[in-house]
Amino acid sequence: MKKVGIAIIGLGTIGTGLYKLIMQNGDLIRNKSGINITINKAVDINKAKKDELNIPNSVFTTSVDEALNSKEVDIVVELIGGTTTAKNVILKAIGKGKHIVTANKALLAQYKSEIVPLLVSKKLELGCEASVGGGIPIIKTLKEALVGNKIHKIIGILNGTSNFILTKMIKEGVSFKEALKTAQKLGFAETDPTLDISGGDAKHKITILSSLAFSTEVDINKVFVEGIEKIDKLDVSYAMELGFVLKLLAIAERVDDGIIVGVHPALVSEKNPLAAVNWEDNAIMVYSDFLGKSMYYGKGAGANPTSSAVVADIVDIALKIKSNYEYNPKVYSFFNNLKQLNFEESNYRYYFKFNVLDRPGILSKISGILGNHNISIASVIQKEVEEKNEYVPLIMLTHRALEKNVRNAFKEIVNLKEVKDKNAIIRVIDD
Amino acid sequence: MKKVGIAIIGLGTIGTGLYKLIMQNGDLIRNKSGINITINKAVDINKAKKDELNIPNSVFTTSVDEALNSKEVDIVVELIGGTTTAKNVILKAIGKGKHIVTANKALLAQYKSEIVPLLVSKKLELGCEASVGGGIPIIKTLKEALVGNKIHKIIGILNGTSNFILTKMIKEGVSFKEALKTAQKLGFAETDPTLDISGGDAKHKITILSSLAFSTEVDINKVFVEGIEKIDKLDVSYAMELGFVLKLLAIAERVDDGIIVGVHPALVSEKNPLAAVNWEDNAIMVYSDFLGKSMYYGKGAGANPTSSAVVADIVDIALKIKSNYEYNPKVYSFFNNLKQLNFEESNYRYYFKFNVLDRPGILSKISGILGNHNISIASVIQKEVEEKNEYVPLIMLTHRALEKNVRNAFKEIVNLKEVKDKNAIIRVIDD
Repeated sequence: MKKVGIAIIGLGTIGTGLYKLIMQNGDLIRNKSGINITINKAVDINKAKKDELNIPNSVFTTSVDEALNSKEVDIVVELIGGTTTAKNVILKAIGKGKHIVTANKALLAQYKSEIVPLLVSKKLELGCEASVGGGIPIIKTLKEALVGNKIHKIIGILNGTSNFILTKMIKEGVSFKEALKTAQKLGFAETDPTLDISGGDAKHKITILSSLAFSTEVDINKVFVEGIEKIDKLDVSYAMELGFVLKLLAIAERVDDGIIVGVHPALVSEKNPLAAVNWEDNAIMVYSDFLGKSMYYGKGAGANPTSSAVVADIVDIALKIKSNYEYNPKVYSFFNNLKQLNFEESNYRYYFKFNVLDRPGILSKISGILGNHNISIASVIQKEVEEKNEYVPLIMLTHRALEKNVRNAFKEIVNLKEVKDKNAIIRVIDD
Repeated sequence: MKKVGIAIIGLGTIGTGLYKLIMQNGDLIRNKSGINITINKAVDINKAKKDELNIPNSVFTTSVDEALNSKEVDIVVELIGGTTTAKNVILKAIGKGKHIVTANKALLAQYKSEIVPLLVSKKLELGCEASVGGGIPIIKTLKEALVGNKIHKIIGILNGTSNFILTKMIKEGVSFKEALKTAQKLGFAETDPTLDISGGDAKHKITILSSLAFSTEVDINKVFVEGIEKIDKLDVSYAMELGFVLKLLAIAERVDDGIIVGVHPALVSEKNPLAAVNWEDNAIMVYSDFLGKSMYYGKGAGANPTSSAVVADIVDIALKIKSNYEYNPKVYSFFNNLKQLNFEESNYRYYFKFNVLDRPGILSKISGILGNHNISIASVIQKEVEEKNEYVPLIMLTHRALEKNVRNAFKEIVNLKEVKDKNAIIRVIDD
C-alpha cells in the first residue's frame, strides 16, 4: 500500500465534498488502486469547519503556509476558487515542490501558460479534471484515451445553469426571465447569474479543453462569447418545429492550420445526442479522426461529482510519484503552434428570424441581400400570426456560410424599412 | 523519447486499422505522450497483407512464434479473435514475459480468471479497452476516472447490430425481419447474425464490464440473456406512444451483497439519454455514488474506433513499463466476493401486452392474477383495433415487481382461455 499525503486548501462546497468522499470511500480507493490517500492538512479560514467535518486538531489549520510547509504533503489540492489568492497558493506550493490538483477553471483559463512552465521546470504534476465538466472525465479522455487521435472539433454543453434555463424554456414554453427565476429558486442559478448566462463560465472551460485537445495555446481574450440572455421563447419554439433544440454551446474547431473557439447559443438537431442533454447536465462531444464522434455526459457541477474528479486526479498523480517514475513533460507541452482565428472566419448553417411587413417583394429583397453575401437559403417558413399584425415572422435556414458574411447581411437586412425589431440569428449544428 | 516495441498478431480488420493508425498518427502520439510505438512484428497467415499494408520484410511474418520470441517486442497485441488460437497466443506471450493488449471480448469473458493470475504472477500488464464499446474509453473510466466511486449499476447499449435493427424498427415502423435484412445489406449485421441479435455478444461485454465495475468475478454462464429476435413491431410502436424506445440493454446491478447481470430488450424512457443512442452507436450509462449518472457514447465497433482504443492501451502500458515503475497488482484484483444472484431476483417495472377477448371481466381477471403475485399496475391501455377482431391488445405498465413473480403471473395469464398468443413482456427503464 502506498501512502500519498494531501492538503486540501479551502473547505467550501467542493472541499467539504472531497473530505467526505475520502472518509467514506477511502477503503474502496485503497482496494481499487493500492493508494492510501491521507489528508495531512485541511485548511479553511472558517474554524467552524473543523467541528462540522470532525477534522482532527493535527489536520485542521487556518494557515495555508502551515499546510504548504508540511513535509508529509505530496499534493496540494487548491479549492479556494477565484484568481488571486488561489494563484498565489498554487505558485507557492509549486515553489515548495508540491504537485497540484485544482478545480479552478478561471485560474487555469487565464494563467495556465504562467503556471505550467514553472511546474514542468520543477518536474511536478498538475491535475485539473474537475475544472471542466465537473465529474465527467473529459480531460483524462482527451489526454489518454484519445492519444492516437487527431481532434477536429469539440462541442460542449459546459454550463449547467444555462442548460437548465434553456431546457425549462424548451419543455415548458416559458420566457428566459421566468426560467431564470425558477433556476434561482432551485439553486441552479446564482443570485447574480451573469457569469453563467453570459457564457463567461463556458468560455473558461472551452479555453482549457481546446488548448488540451489541440495541444496549443489558446488566448481566452480571443474566444468569442454570446450568452443566452436575449433568447426569445418564440425562437425556441420555432426551432423545435424545425427539429432542433436550443443549447448554449462551447465550440472549438480546427480549421486548416488554425483554430476557432467560441461560446454561443445554437440550434442542435434532435438527431445529435447533445440534444438529449437536458436540465443541469453537461456533455462534451469530441470529433476525432479514428474514434469518430464520441460523447461524455454527466453532472457538470456539485460537490460530489467534482470531488469524484479531484480524487481521480489525486490517485493518478499518486500512482506516478509513489512509483519511482520518470517525469514526462510531454503531457503538458503545447507542441502545436496553431493560429487562433477570429470567430468571423467560422462556417455555420444559420437560423434567421426576421419580423417583416407582410408585403409582396420582401422575401425577394431579403434573399437578394443574402445572395449578395454568398449565403444560400436551405428553407423558408413564413409563420402565420394569430393576432392582427402587419408584421410576420419569416424564418430561414441557410446552407453553410461564412460568419463574417452572415453578420454583414444581417445588418443590412435589419436596416430595411420593411423589417421590424426582435430579429434573431442563431447558428445551427446538425451532427 | 521512449520506444516501445509491439507485435500485432492478426491483420484482419482491426489489425489493419491499427497498423494504419500507427503509420498515420505516430508523430502525433510521440508528441502527445512521449512514446514512440515501433511495430517490430506484424503477423498474419495471409501473405498478401504484407504488400497491402506495405510492411517491411523484417516486420512481416506468418509465424506467431517469431513475433513472440523477438526481444524487441514489449507488448503483444492479440487481434486474432476466437477463443482457441487467441488463448494459446496470449498464454504463450505471457510465458515469454510480454505485456498483452487485446480486443477479444469472448476470450476475456470466458478465460479472464485463468489469464489474469498468470499475468499478475509475472508482473505483466493487460490492456482490454477495445474489448467493450469499441473506441469508447469505458474501461479506463471505470478503472481510473471512477476510482473514488462505488458503482451501483451499469446499463449499456453494447451491440451495434441490435441497436441498428431496433432503431430501424422504431424510426421506420418495419418488422424485425425487414430491419435485419437492411442491416445485413449495409454491413451492420453478419450473414449469420445470431451472436449479435441473440444477446451473446452483449453478454461477453457486460461480463467484462461488470467484473471490473464491481471488482468481483462474474460467471458468464449465470448471465441472463434474451435477444431481440422475437420483438414485435407493434410493441415498438405502443412503447413509443407511452414515451419509451425499445433497446437491447446489458445491465449489471449491485443488490446488497450481490450482483445481477443480464442482457435483454427493455423500454427506455425518452428522458433517459440512452434513448437517444441510435443506429449502430453504443453507449454505457454508469450509476455511481459520487459522480452520479454519467454516460459514455461512441462507435462500438469498426477498425478505426477499435484501433483508437488499442493505441490508448499501448501508450498507457508503455508509459508504465518504460518508466522504471512499480507494478500495481491491485488494478487486476477482484477484492469483492459478491454473490451473483439469479436474474429472477431482479426488480423492474414491466410492460405487458396481452391479446385478450374483448369481454367484460377479463381486465379484472388479469389484474387479480397480478395482484396475487404482488404486482401492482401503474397504467392500462386497451388498444382499439381497426380490423374486425374479437381479440384486442391490452397494454399494462406495472410498478416495480420481482422478476420471479412476474414470470409466474405471466405464465398464468397467457394460459387463460380468453388470452390469445403474441403476448409480450418487456422490462422498463425510467432513468
